[in-house]
Amino acid sequence: MNNLPALDRIRVVLSRPSHPGNIGAAARAMKTMGLFHLWLVSPASFPDPVAEARASGAGDVLAVVRVVGSLREALSGTVLAAALTARRRDLSLARLDPRAAAAELVQWAQGTRGEVALVFGNEASGLSNEELELCTLQVTIPANPAYASLNLGAAVQLMCYELRLAAMGQGDGTFPIEPLPEPATHDEIENFFTHLESSIVESGFLDPAKPRRLMSRLRRLFGRVRLEKEEIAILRGILSSFGTGVKNSRQKQ
Amino acid sequence: MNNLPALDRIRVVLSRPSHPGNIGAAARAMKTMGLFHLWLVSPASFPDPVAEARASGAGDVLAVVRVVGSLREALSGTVLAAALTARRRDLSLARLDPRAAAAELVQWAQGTRGEVALVFGNEASGLSNEELELCTLQVTIPANPAYASLNLGAAVQLMCYELRLAAMGQGDGTFPIEPLPEPATHDEIENFFTHLESSIVESGFLDPAKPRRLMSRLRRLFGRVRLEKEEIAILRGILSSFGTGVKNSRQKQ
Repeated sequence: MNNLPALDRIRVVLSRPSHPGNIGAAARAMKTMGLFHLWLVSPASFPDPVAEARASGAGDVLAVVRVVGSLREALSGTVLAAALTARRRDLSLARLDPRAAAAELVQWAQGTRGEVALVFGNEASGLSNEELELCTLQVTIPANPAYASLNLGAAVQLMCYELRLAAMGQGDGTFPIEPLPEPATHDEIENFFTHLESSIVESGFLDPAKPRRLMSRLRRLFGRVRLEKEEIAILRGILSSFGTGVKNSRQKQ
Repeated sequence: MNNLPALDRIRVVLSRPSHPGNIGAAARAMKTMGLFHLWLVSPASFPDPVAEARASGAGDVLAVVRVVGSLREALSGTVLAAALTARRRDLSLARLDPRAAAAELVQWAQGTRGEVALVFGNEASGLSNEELELCTLQVTIPANPAYASLNLGAAVQLMCYELRLAAMGQGDGTFPIEPLPEPATHDEIENFFTHLESSIVESGFLDPAKPRRLMSRLRRLFGRVRLEKEEIAILRGILSSFGTGVKNSRQKQ
């Protein structure tokens, strides 16, 4: 299907797109650059004849679109998710420009068996903080500070172009393709966060009535690491070893 | 008007555009990247409310569009004209990819008093041979050979993005340096590892008689994060909260 196999392991995710025309434009932009996996989270209207029209010759991409109800579902099975953000966000993740982000996405798509995702928010409101926290890194397209409002389809075009260049080995001509340790999947990482949260609630460090921004801080910290599968096992082993202690202490009291 | 003066000497020329929506999309794409000079050669319909709608917040670019009757007029006063072509056309013209073409256009725009032009043909038929002969070089966007049909507005977005990067001197993809949160010091990080090690020895997860490579793994994991000062405080707070539980459980046994 593709002479650049890394591109077959990249999902483009549009979260809550308002305008079906932009869905069609995204499909067309993707196909011109050799990407085929489009996921939609709660689109306002899909399928829609306007999307078909704007897709032009990329109806085959629309025909296999995956429609899901949450970003969490769209990221299930991925090992890296890059979120497009127009500006630096609160408690931000690592932030890259399109070229550096494309190099990283392609390297992960080539070096592992997992899929990677590129996530675009709603046309007007972007990604919510909750959505952003599910992602691993932020990508910001350099733009006119006085008017940085790229059309969604145009932003997809630009990112897919950078992905194609990176897959062709032309991102900056220097990044090596190295085998990487097996990364943790999105689901494994989310399960770790659930385990961590319940552990520190049990230990008394996190008061659910006054959570402050503690879990966000911890997500940001571990989000920067790109956790590996074995590391998740170690961290959860550590949490379990503490958990036993805490539980015992409760039981004995 | 622009903190990247080279961009003020670049014209975007659309020759015989069929769809007013694409004119609006081009204006928007240009403004997001800091380009403002749009020339139209014999547009099918302009002005047009569809163009206004698609321009979104770039109505100011549409308001100063120059409409002319021939490409020759649109290129009057320019010193260099780069023509977008989907495939190799005139064998006598140099053919560059978008990045190389943007570097050349910006270099000319900065190094001379003249203007330069980026020329896009009709959506369906492209540039005629006569039009191509008026240009200095060809630009071809790398694309899926099976479907290289970029939307006109998306192609303008992509080229203007490369022009902005070239004008910023950032063709290599580096981002401007931003202030970072205060990093943890070496001593703070070492004290954290000491705390972590004693905690997991106490919890029973690390057996000092059979340490395997556990601390090395954890050092590698946290070493990738570039821990911040506040994060160290959170992590040590968590360890202390577990430590209490473990200690209590031992005391009660």
